[in-house]
Amino acid sequence: MARKPRSVDLTQVSEWDDGKLRRKQDYLAAEEPLEIRIGGAPLSVTMRTPGHDIELAAGFLFTEGLVQQRAQILALEESESGSAGENRGNVVAAQLAANADYDSEKMRRNFFAASSCGICGKASIDSVRSRALSAPNPDFKLDPEILVRLPDALRESQAVFGRTGGLHAAGLFDASGKLLVLREDIGRHNAVDKVIGWALLEGRVPLREAILMVSGRGGFEIVQKAIVAGLPVVASVSAPSSLAVQLARETGQTLIGFLRGRRFVVYSGETRIASE
Amino acid sequence: MARKPRSVDLTQVSEWDDGKLRRKQDYLAAEEPLEIRIGGAPLSVTMRTPGHDIELAAGFLFTEGLVQQRAQILALEESESGSAGENRGNVVAAQLAANADYDSEKMRRNFFAASSCGICGKASIDSVRSRALSAPNPDFKLDPEILVRLPDALRESQAVFGRTGGLHAAGLFDASGKLLVLREDIGRHNAVDKVIGWALLEGRVPLREAILMVSGRGGFEIVQKAIVAGLPVVASVSAPSSLAVQLARETGQTLIGFLRGRRFVVYSGETRIASE
Repeated sequence: MARKPRSVDLTQVSEWDDGKLRRKQDYLAAEEPLEIRIGGAPLSVTMRTPGHDIELAAGFLFTEGLVQQRAQILALEESESGSAGENRGNVVAAQLAANADYDSEKMRRNFFAASSCGICGKASIDSVRSRALSAPNPDFKLDPEILVRLPDALRESQAVFGRTGGLHAAGLFDASGKLLVLREDIGRHNAVDKVIGWALLEGRVPLREAILMVSGRGGFEIVQKAIVAGLPVVASVSAPSSLAVQLARETGQTLIGFLRGRRFVVYSGETRIASE
Repeated sequence: MARKPRSVDLTQVSEWDDGKLRRKQDYLAAEEPLEIRIGGAPLSVTMRTPGHDIELAAGFLFTEGLVQQRAQILALEESESGSAGENRGNVVAAQLAANADYDSEKMRRNFFAASSCGICGKASIDSVRSRALSAPNPDFKLDPEILVRLPDALRESQAVFGRTGGLHAAGLFDASGKLLVLREDIGRHNAVDKVIGWALLEGRVPLREAILMVSGRGGFEIVQKAIVAGLPVVASVSAPSSLAVQLARETGQTLIGFLRGRRFVVYSGETRIASE
């Protein structure tokens, strides 16, 4: 039987506290390579925190443009052994429909190289932009009083975070502020792929009425993945990058940063913020 | 003349503060693709914050194993135009010595795919481990009283951080706590490549007597790059991952996490922490 990778490891460490050094047990966020295979051939290896690997693979295939809809994923399952025979529990195998936009030659070239970080594996940033992405739902409205409650709701649901302090979180919320799903990962983009993969497998994509909230900053790859999923709003507690703002403005997505306390900054798509 | 990419952009945003929405100017950390070329052929595209691109390219070539020493980099310069003719200011061209460990066929395969995140572009984590990495300096000793001063020293030197809040920092310190170099980037691994690239170009590698301090968490790719550079100590203000701890223990590197106030956690290499 395959060893099941865990999302948290327990280990022996030393804590130095104002001159005193003592041994103690501490939790670590697990980070292991996940190999995604298509039709038996390796596609990519990404470093991730084990857990919800099927969702991660589904989200990766979708946000990276290999499939455009749920139905194109014929099968998706954890594989008992990896290509080296030792990668147990760290392989997900996919079967895609014949009509999936999957360039096997290009993908083969990119194996050993592609990753889930949203830009690696791409010819250039222009190729990301050239993908036909429709503008997210213009009619979605967001109540600021609900928005300011999301960071606490995200944190309260982060069970693992409390133990290791090392994981990024991504959460999907509806317009009333109800948490639909929360996923964590040592890689921010993986956490986003996990929640979008969950939505894809649940038949909820495009996410025309949802908000993506991330615990870290709103980088280009987060905005890009959110646009593919049709999300009208992305919010983060920290700063976005210039390219994230540019992409959000080009596609008409609402991008919120520095969501802390009763304050936030709107970088794009201000019209979705409801005023009394 | 090439447009010079900047590390910070100024843009118009809206700030919502307790019910009031007002327009204001805000700084954004810039994020643009940097293409690294070798002998005229494209090698990789990485998303980075413009600035110190030569150091970033040198650090990338070194920590990713394309060169083992400074002398193998015959030339390294900013190129006036990219492959698409529009990538001005975002291309660094390298000429490597014939004896550089550079598999052009493999690299060609990986173009459009390799990135600076330390694991993408690698066949597997085992290939990272299989690189002949010598154990870092066992005689280096670290005074805890100096260690606890490093986070403040790093923050005080982060000029850009104060404006955007969006950049990771990496700093090299000597055993007395003196800052040797500080670099920032929207990508943590890029900030590390920049400081290691600086050290390589200054003839200071291997860094047998230095400490690498990073503003974020100590992930696998940070530890891996630090080991290549010979650094005996890596410290961060946040949590390391399980794989980072595993690699640090395997190679005998000292790995410090949660360095905050007068407290830190030692995950590996405790013998380098000097006790009175």
